[in-house]
Amino acid sequence: MENRNRTEIATLGEFGLIEKLTADITPTNESTRKGVGDDAAVLHYEGRETLVTTDLLLEGVHFDLTYVPLKHLGYKSAVVNFSDIYAMNGTPRQITVSLGVSKRFSVEDLEELYAGIRLACQTYGVDLVGGDTSASMTGLTISITCIGEGIAGKIAYRNGARENDLICVSGDLGAAYMGLQLLEREKRVFAGEKDFKPAFDNREYLLERQLKPEARRDVVEALDKAGIVPTAMMDISDGLSSELLHICKQSHTGCRVYEERIPIDYQTALMAEEFNMNLVTAALNGGEDYELLFTVPLSLHETVSAIPGVKVIGHITAPSLGCCLVTRDGNEIELRAQGWNSLAEE
Amino acid sequence: MENRNRTEIATLGEFGLIEKLTADITPTNESTRKGVGDDAAVLHYEGRETLVTTDLLLEGVHFDLTYVPLKHLGYKSAVVNFSDIYAMNGTPRQITVSLGVSKRFSVEDLEELYAGIRLACQTYGVDLVGGDTSASMTGLTISITCIGEGIAGKIAYRNGARENDLICVSGDLGAAYMGLQLLEREKRVFAGEKDFKPAFDNREYLLERQLKPEARRDVVEALDKAGIVPTAMMDISDGLSSELLHICKQSHTGCRVYEERIPIDYQTALMAEEFNMNLVTAALNGGEDYELLFTVPLSLHETVSAIPGVKVIGHITAPSLGCCLVTRDGNEIELRAQGWNSLAEE
Repeated sequence: MENRNRTEIATLGEFGLIEKLTADITPTNESTRKGVGDDAAVLHYEGRETLVTTDLLLEGVHFDLTYVPLKHLGYKSAVVNFSDIYAMNGTPRQITVSLGVSKRFSVEDLEELYAGIRLACQTYGVDLVGGDTSASMTGLTISITCIGEGIAGKIAYRNGARENDLICVSGDLGAAYMGLQLLEREKRVFAGEKDFKPAFDNREYLLERQLKPEARRDVVEALDKAGIVPTAMMDISDGLSSELLHICKQSHTGCRVYEERIPIDYQTALMAEEFNMNLVTAALNGGEDYELLFTVPLSLHETVSAIPGVKVIGHITAPSLGCCLVTRDGNEIELRAQGWNSLAEE
Repeated sequence: MENRNRTEIATLGEFGLIEKLTADITPTNESTRKGVGDDAAVLHYEGRETLVTTDLLLEGVHFDLTYVPLKHLGYKSAVVNFSDIYAMNGTPRQITVSLGVSKRFSVEDLEELYAGIRLACQTYGVDLVGGDTSASMTGLTISITCIGEGIAGKIAYRNGARENDLICVSGDLGAAYMGLQLLEREKRVFAGEKDFKPAFDNREYLLERQLKPEARRDVVEALDKAGIVPTAMMDISDGLSSELLHICKQSHTGCRVYEERIPIDYQTALMAEEFNMNLVTAALNGGEDYELLFTVPLSLHETVSAIPGVKVIGHITAPSLGCCLVTRDGNEIELRAQGWNSLAEE
């Protein structure tokens, strides 16, 4: 936010600012009938279900602008909402973006933020169709709502897991959390130091997972291509443990997941060692992975295992058996919904 | 927020809090297929257009909790979104509610806020289908998104006004702004005084307009009953001048509105006199009226005039004539988009 042109937001006013930020935004989805510029956007879903999800991001709580570039923040804010729509086995189509902005931010800052949001929209084929921009007393507030579409009968809820279903997860877990630890460490080291160079070499994957996560559209498309409708699905935002407990609670089941099967990247493991942290704890409770956690009938074992980047990590059980992690030495540990917030406070 | 049971939000945690606030919420709209409790809500609009609008409300900017009760705040936050959907000639069906809450607020406070939101939903037949609740560093942040439905061909945009169309407005204007002035004055008088009793006698209408506004569903329904589809429509949130300029800009027209026809309540007029303020300025720029401003073809003069609470205040002109208020003495004054924010700063 330094060494650049700085235009005060007050010079444009609210309407001028919105016009500037949303200039040349042209809807690409057939379902977007009318975007920015009226009391409401107009959408049309012929014979489809409409999906709606929303997220509120507050400076100092959900993001720290000392190490998160505004463009990345915009990208991530949009992508985490797309991820929620994919987690229903749907396709994101439109978003609205509301911003609360203090005087600290210039028009150029907001253009950076919007550049990230627009890049995400472009990458995922989503239209920006409205929002609200206003002054705030302190900091930056971002509220994004995403609308998507799904096909009746193919929407994946949290409550559809059945006994003996396979528990699957995409990608790898814990990297975003390790990326956050790394950024926090470098921030502490940096404090007060001149000419500081953060030690990020060979850690690019962890940083990318934290700063510029992607939603697993590819996995949803691969499942569809393979003719699989998951019995239950969620995206992993609060951590594998927390999400598994949501699925089991809503489906009235128990589960067993196996420590040895939890997918973890090599860089995540190295970093955990360096930080002297428990690797499995980070993978179970780290959060912000935005990978997909889903269940499929046992009969689909071969089909689902053949999908690149998808791993079977356990199975659904009767509710009486509870929700446990089976460790490498065969012990069963009850899963706890620790979530990344409480973890960060330890 | 005093003298009541106080449960710290931390004792419930995020999921516990959401469960408590959304307990026994049962969808009533046919279009709500799945509400709170999954990654996204699922809606279904058979053969209808979907409308989406969103609002962000920040403590200290959009509301002042020293004189706004939380229940009223909840009610108003929801209603202003419904108003945007009605302003498209649509019907609100679902809302999502995102809250950012600092430690100052207890579970009971949020229950008050939700009681207002739920009352609004009940009154207008809207389902609460999702949201996001998180901690904030300071103050209260409320982000509401409303989804509604409209009939293709009957949606009223801002850009459809045509030369010679009649300009109509519902209810009366300026009262909400006067209510705000009254509350601000009593707040200043109150500062430091013990046993203070605010002077609100015979001002109930102004307070109600500010604290508990209603959306004009009745007017939208009456228009439909009369077979009228407005050529353009908006709700008046920033003030009549500002909204008129939006319609004229987007419709590429000018307009003439007549000072003597602008509907103003008796209490509003009295209060303006007491405050020594220009009454017409308050009615033109006061804002937060949430009345409907719309245009209809000249041929519908009789039909539209017969609708209770609707008044014809002027007409649309060629763009070259500009946008003017015709005063009682026949002068033309150009309309300016002052809006209520800048007005408040004077």
